[in-house]
This record gives sequence, structure tokens and C-alpha cells, in this order.
Amino acid sequence: MNCCENCPRGQLIVISGPSGVGKGTVVSLILETYNGFSRSKSLTTRPRRDRDPNDEKYEFCDRDTFNKRFEEGDILERTEYGGNYYGTIRSELEKGVEEGKNILMEIDVNGALQIKRLYPHAILICLLPDKFSDLITRLRTRGTEDPENMKIRLDEAKKEITYFHEFDYVVVNSSGKAAKAAEEIVGIVHADSLRTARHNEFYKELLDSLNSEGSGCPDANDN
Amino acid sequence: MNCCENCPRGQLIVISGPSGVGKGTVVSLILETYNGFSRSKSLTTRPRRDRDPNDEKYEFCDRDTFNKRFEEGDILERTEYGGNYYGTIRSELEKGVEEGKNILMEIDVNGALQIKRLYPHAILICLLPDKFSDLITRLRTRGTEDPENMKIRLDEAKKEITYFHEFDYVVVNSSGKAAKAAEEIVGIVHADSLRTARHNEFYKELLDSLNSEGSGCPDANDN
Repeated sequence: MNCCENCPRGQLIVISGPSGVGKGTVVSLILETYNGFSRSKSLTTRPRRDRDPNDEKYEFCDRDTFNKRFEEGDILERTEYGGNYYGTIRSELEKGVEEGKNILMEIDVNGALQIKRLYPHAILICLLPDKFSDLITRLRTRGTEDPENMKIRLDEAKKEITYFHEFDYVVVNSSGKAAKAAEEIVGIVHADSLRTARHNEFYKELLDSLNSEGSGCPDANDN
Repeated sequence: MNCCENCPRGQLIVISGPSGVGKGTVVSLILETYNGFSRSKSLTTRPRRDRDPNDEKYEFCDRDTFNKRFEEGDILERTEYGGNYYGTIRSELEKGVEEGKNILMEIDVNGALQIKRLYPHAILICLLPDKFSDLITRLRTRGTEDPENMKIRLDEAKKEITYFHEFDYVVVNSSGKAAKAAEEIVGIVHADSLRTARHNEFYKELLDSLNSEGSGCPDANDN
């Protein structure tokens, strides 16, 4: 099966889960380690941080520009978080999938559910900690959160986790095992590429070959 | 996530597809190469062949015994094929899954659809040839089929293939690449084990840990 020729469109993989669970680390690991993956690009009104990599993850803008592009329909979902807007840039996303890239979206639970409504074939993966104490440790280590902010994040995590069953898959990002989580996600994406729903073209070709070859065989060629 | 502790039940994997596609070869390869898999056992009225391995694939019996066990409810699906009955032994199947084994069922399309109705969580995999000419070659090489029988098998294959979309996954068994097909099936099974629907226990435990740990944090421990 020439899977790529029959299914030229890439897959949309939504990596979600509570803040601090390590979405960014796992997504970066996939991008560094495996071929065929790209990251979706988001528009945000949050200020650029020193440690923001100079890559394609964010495009920064002010609130007016954000709202304008949202109204124009180029922002897929608008999430407000810590007083800033975040949203995926639709044109870039669809172009990537069209080119056959597997696009990783690293978004919060609310955004993930919105994406699933727009793209029912998107693969929703919920990244979770082994235990919630891991999450608290990670938020502390990050050092950018004051206690107030951290409480808000944990309360949000509690709310988010109730949407567990809206996700297709759950992957656990245990402390120090991000490579395993990355490998599992890549495995899920590969398995998903084998779903019958993604192979209508292959099915039609097989039916054609069967009708043309099967009818004359086996007797006709049986010397 | 202690996936195995939370989900002690194994998975039921139905490998189906037209006669001659290589179901047996692929299933044997999985059993030889990967841990944690077993084969389901069938009851059949077909005569034992010289090349039947002396393993657990078939239990042979006469037609009366078959019918009696079918009526008793121990035969999951009854398929008549080439004048003989075939059916999966229910008690052995359920015992295996209960013990946490991943049970591979190698059955025809008709049987596969019956299994899905009984066990909605079963993973239905359609094994197909790259091209239908491969199938004809394989049936010829097998040498146990006379032209008459081969025509019947090809006509059955045409009928079977129309059920393509009832299957969850399609795996292509290209000539000489059975190991790749086996690897893909194992990947599908692993990805399926990460479906949220299989992790209710993990979800509940996480919620509990969140409610007990999250409420006192972060302030209480923040010295």
C-alpha cells in the first residue's frame, strides 16, 4: 500500500493536558527525533519571554491585531489564559496538513475540544502526569510561577481533567521519561494512519484490480 | 501509568481478510516475535491436514459434536467454508483475555463482523494484498487448491472486500514483507491500549490524588 500516495494529507495531532505536564518538552522531542512532524503556529498577545525560542511556535501581536485576524477567520480557537489571547493560525495549519505534514498542536484542553469540533479526524491526545504531585514539582521548578498563579493553574488543571473522556488517547509523561511519551505519540500517529477511514483510495484501487484481474483468473492463465 | 495494573484485561485482535492473503503467516510471526500474544482456538469439522501444526489453533470434531457445542453457547461464530464448520471456542477466548493476554483471532470476514457485535472493543484488522494478483499467486503456490476451488475463493474475496469499512484498520501484507505487517499490527495493539476508554481506573486515581494533594498546595508546603 502506498500509504503516502493514497493519503497525501498529513494528520492533525492535538497534544493537550494540564499546564506543567510537559507538553512543550514532549513536542520538541518528537520534532527533534522523528521525521515528518511539524509544529502548528499560534498567534498570541502575551509578551515575548527571554527563553522563547526563536522558532515557529508563536507569532506575537497586540490585542487589536489578534482580534482583527480572529474576525477575519484566520484564528482557529481563541483562548484567554493569564490575561493573554492564544490561538492557532488556521491558514498555516491547513497548508501544512495539505502538504502531508503531521502537525502537532500543543494547546490547552479548551482549545483541543474546539479543534475536534472543526476537524473530527484530529487525534486528541491527553498528556498526563503519573501523579499530580509531579505536576506541582514541575510548576515549581519552572520558576516563572508565583504561588498565586500556581494555584490558578492547579485549579484549571482540575477542571481540565474532567474532559478526559473527550480525548482519543492518554499518554503519561512520567518524570524523566519524556522520550517514552514521545515514542508512544508517534506510535499512535502511525497506527491512526492505518485506519480504514483513511484509505478509501486504496480500497477503490483494490476493487478495480480485483474486477479486472479476478474475472479472467484463474482458468484463463492456467496452462 | 501502570497500564497493566489498571487494565488487566487483554485485547481481542481480529485478523481478517481474504483467503490466501497470509493471515496465518502474519499471526505466526507475531506469536514467534512478540511477547504477550496468544492465538484463539477454533473448533472445526474439517479433516486434519498433514501440514496442520500440532499447536493450539484447531480442535477437530465431527459435525454432531460441533452442533452440540454451538447450541450450548461455547462456539462464538459458526462459519461454513468449503463444506466445513469453523467457530471460535468462547470459553478459551474469554479466559485468555481475562488473564491479560492479547488474543489474536484469525478468522474470515463474516466471523470478524460477528465478533465485533459481541465484543465492541475488539480491534478489527483487515489484512489485504498489495494487489489482487498477489493473492492469486499465493493461492497457486499453496497448491492445495484446484482451479474450481480457487474460483470460489476469489469470488468470496470479492464479496468480503466490500466490508472493508466495517474494519478499524487496514494492514497490507505485501509479498515478502510479512514481518512489516506483523510489526504494524503490534503497533496498532499498543496504540489501542492507550485509548482513554481503556483507562477509567487511572483517571479516577488521578482525580483522587488531585483532590487530596492539590487542595493543600502550593501555599501549605511553600516555606
